Amino acid sequence: MTPVIEEDRLTETFAALANSTRRAILARLARGEANVTELAEPFDFTLPAISKHIKVLERAGLIVRGQRAQYRPCTLDAAPLEAVSTWAEQYRPVWEARFDRMSDYLTHLQAQPRTGRTR
Amino acid sequence: MTPVIEEDRLTETFAALANSTRRAILARLARGEANVTELAEPFDFTLPAISKHIKVLERAGLIVRGQRAQYRPCTLDAAPLEAVSTWAEQYRPVWEARFDRMSDYLTHLQAQPRTGRTR
Repeated sequence: MTPVIEEDRLTETFAALANSTRRAILARLARGEANVTELAEPFDFTLPAISKHIKVLERAGLIVRGQRAQYRPCTLDAAPLEAVSTWAEQYRPVWEARFDRMSDYLTHLQAQPRTGRTR
Repeated sequence: MTPVIEEDRLTETFAALANSTRRAILARLARGEANVTELAEPFDFTLPAISKHIKVLERAGLIVRGQRAQYRPCTLDAAPLEAVSTWAEQYRPVWEARFDRMSDYLTHLQAQPRTGRTR
């Protein structure tokens, strides 16, 4: 894959994940395959509304549909989520530096003489 | 934070990340603070277009603006990216299982007698 395609793929993945119902569908599929009716059950949505969410997830490569005519179960494909994790992990040094600065500051506070008490 | 607020926050973060220019802005800020003009330089965008992207990142808590009147530098706040990483990491067992299955399959292929050769 060229970097541009990877960037487009990442954009599509993030757009698909920017919806709590779609994230809940992925969480359900992490426990095993399910068809559209089974996926619609826990949500107060119509089948067409759930189907729309499933199509978005399918286009983003997060869901694969089975090919059996009557029963086309949805299966989670976590590969794009691995790409999201790898992308976010680049920034680990930034969030850890923030934590280190906070930790240094707290150590500094504890090390200071408690002038208020000795007066 | 309640789970609903966390879900809303995650939705806003993913929506902000669903754009390659905004991700490039974050990559630039990981190297240090920058003002809007400095952020606009590498992109073929007008200042208002970049400002719009910065506002989206600011609303998602990914950028903090300085308060100095003439020079309001943007700083990266990686805390929402840590939340994204934590969220995606839940699915690690799923993508690792896929890798394990592929690895088992390859081992199985290698273990098979090469009937083609011996004939």
